Amino acid sequence: MRIATLSIGDELLRGEVVDSNAARIAARLADAGLAVGRHLTVGDDEGEIEAALGTLAAGHDAVIVTGGLGPTDDDVTARAAARATGRRLVLNEEALDRLRDFFSRRGRELYPANERQCLLPAKAGLIPNILGTACGFHLLHGECLLVFLPGVPAEMARMLEESVVPLVLDRRSGPEVTRTAVLTLFGLSEAEIGGWLSGLERSREGLGIAYCVDFPMVQVKLRATARSEEEAAEIIAGGLPLVRERLGDVIVAEGDDTIDTAVARLFREKGLTLALAESCTGGLIAKRITDVAGSSAYFSMGLVTYANGAKERLLGVPAALLAEKGAVSAEVARAMARGARHAAGSDLALAVTGIAGPDGGSDDKPVGTVYLALADRAGCSVKAYRFAGERDAIRTVTAVTALDWLRRRLLAA
Amino acid sequence: MRIATLSIGDELLRGEVVDSNAARIAARLADAGLAVGRHLTVGDDEGEIEAALGTLAAGHDAVIVTGGLGPTDDDVTARAAARATGRRLVLNEEALDRLRDFFSRRGRELYPANERQCLLPAKAGLIPNILGTACGFHLLHGECLLVFLPGVPAEMARMLEESVVPLVLDRRSGPEVTRTAVLTLFGLSEAEIGGWLSGLERSREGLGIAYCVDFPMVQVKLRATARSEEEAAEIIAGGLPLVRERLGDVIVAEGDDTIDTAVARLFREKGLTLALAESCTGGLIAKRITDVAGSSAYFSMGLVTYANGAKERLLGVPAALLAEKGAVSAEVARAMARGARHAAGSDLALAVTGIAGPDGGSDDKPVGTVYLALADRAGCSVKAYRFAGERDAIRTVTAVTALDWLRRRLLAA
Repeated sequence: MRIATLSIGDELLRGEVVDSNAARIAARLADAGLAVGRHLTVGDDEGEIEAALGTLAAGHDAVIVTGGLGPTDDDVTARAAARATGRRLVLNEEALDRLRDFFSRRGRELYPANERQCLLPAKAGLIPNILGTACGFHLLHGECLLVFLPGVPAEMARMLEESVVPLVLDRRSGPEVTRTAVLTLFGLSEAEIGGWLSGLERSREGLGIAYCVDFPMVQVKLRATARSEEEAAEIIAGGLPLVRERLGDVIVAEGDDTIDTAVARLFREKGLTLALAESCTGGLIAKRITDVAGSSAYFSMGLVTYANGAKERLLGVPAALLAEKGAVSAEVARAMARGARHAAGSDLALAVTGIAGPDGGSDDKPVGTVYLALADRAGCSVKAYRFAGERDAIRTVTAVTALDWLRRRLLAA
Repeated sequence: MRIATLSIGDELLRGEVVDSNAARIAARLADAGLAVGRHLTVGDDEGEIEAALGTLAAGHDAVIVTGGLGPTDDDVTARAAARATGRRLVLNEEALDRLRDFFSRRGRELYPANERQCLLPAKAGLIPNILGTACGFHLLHGECLLVFLPGVPAEMARMLEESVVPLVLDRRSGPEVTRTAVLTLFGLSEAEIGGWLSGLERSREGLGIAYCVDFPMVQVKLRATARSEEEAAEIIAGGLPLVRERLGDVIVAEGDDTIDTAVARLFREKGLTLALAESCTGGLIAKRITDVAGSSAYFSMGLVTYANGAKERLLGVPAALLAEKGAVSAEVARAMARGARHAAGSDLALAVTGIAGPDGGSDDKPVGTVYLALADRAGCSVKAYRFAGERDAIRTVTAVTALDWLRRRLLAA
């Protein structure tokens, strides 16, 4: 099946926004065994869009379009779609009802400009958008399925999953099916993982491996292409144990799981509670813990003791220790973890102190120096790290390293 | 000047890598007043690449190509370039010398596979790559400048800056230049902003407006195209006051500023300190405050009191109040803010309690119900919200709403 994607937006052509939608769509379709053959980006220009739709529709079985469905004057995708397919723009009543409902549920009146967003090409099928005001739509042009989605990533992703993938699969020709198993890894580079898994593809007919770096994690995707669901599932079932055997506990999650949800499940399973004391991550670890719904069951409290005064007041870290060893030290990390566990009365307490930069580094403690401490009833252990990269990267890898330590600690509990 | 970009790589079409190069190139050219008219991505297929080069060269004055210059068999860009321009592939001696030098400086021998990377179309101009083994090159096809760069972002960016921008500017026809001013807004929808600014474009020759949603913010981009820097700057200088006048204090930041950095600057300017007590945002606000380097100067502490016990222990919220009013209530928000300010001894304390979902909602307090409280020496005020969307969106808009309240409070200080 020949599939193309078309992204619309001057902001993309000006490089003001990196087009993550194209990759998102391609990756999701690849998981379903469908390959995107080309991707095109054009600006918010009615003629350009119309021409692009004509060209792509002629050479593909499906074209998935994102962007240009907003309420402002520079959103002209629907009009261009109507022209490209020789249809009139008509007010889609269902879309208008849903939009009115969308606003009323928020206790607001329908804004006139938003009504424009309900003008769709005649006989277009509606693709509801429960997260925003720009509805999507699909129509057939000759033999080609044209799908139009808003460019807002969260809205696009939801509509892709719920409406577009089924639509496209419906029109898939040929009996081949693809199944994908996703594993999320932390602690090895893409190259190292590739080394561990080398030769695996050739070991099984129809088995493919793809790597996808999602810093600081690496995702390994096992893909099986076969003539039947069963056959594909069998190939995956044969490949997974080999990957697990070769990579062991650097696999932090499988399927839709993330390290965050994996840690959350382990806390529930083990019935343990957690307190956090964060310095250089400044709440990032707590944020990730509470990204998971229901985390209040095991997350007692988080203390963001960014300033020394807070370390003393909230965690009882002795001022003398801070003065002698410095806030970024193994000793202070240990005192923070013990203080947090005491303050929260939790089973576990994890503390982090470090230098995220860009300032604050020294010769013996350069930017990227991080100490993690994990306290439990038995005592407290500390780990020292020296991470590379800029402030954001250091904070992110520190948070994931902390979550991975919790994961390993809980697995052993 | 009509410019196109072409990205080459199967990994892009599989969505395993987000194409940041296209945005990088477009943004850099936009800074130079050059607009990219379209962007195309094709796979590592010689025929596809050749066809794409032919089509793009016919319709543009310059085409900037990235990817497919590596040492492995699936890197076929140079061969496709030779075919598309009717040239032979020849060993480029200068490239080979540089590559030998590249390896010898690293005390390594030249791999045979890398020698392939010196096979370039005849009479191509070399674009040196001091960071990697894939050299770039440029050639004229008819009236069109074709530029080829490796896909590794760091190498591409360096070569873009040092070699490609000058090459393209050399061929710029016509004296047009472009200048852009960016404003970040919060509190109005894209539709409402479009309404406020409607007609503004037509009010000034050469003035353009683009909208870019970066949830929950909206960016307004004023773009001036003119015959000289001065003229473009003048058009921007004429448009900005009108935008500021129409949109007032929903403008939270201008230029490279974000609401995070704007709040940070205000805290430094006013010399006030902050404490946070977060429930449903679970550390997200603290994370954003500490995203900005140097925040320890004004950020006293953050308390993530996700569980009720923590609200009592850390913030002194009476258990009776929690029982009577519920953790998500104006009264508890107020008590949290006062407790945080007391615990931290800070000038300001902001507290948030709410229901991010998906569970925990009720008829009178549905998912999205959020209370913010801001305490200072004078007292404490509370605001109630009912946000739409899923857990992530509710937490994000809550955090930005809190930051925006701090921004307005500090502006008034």
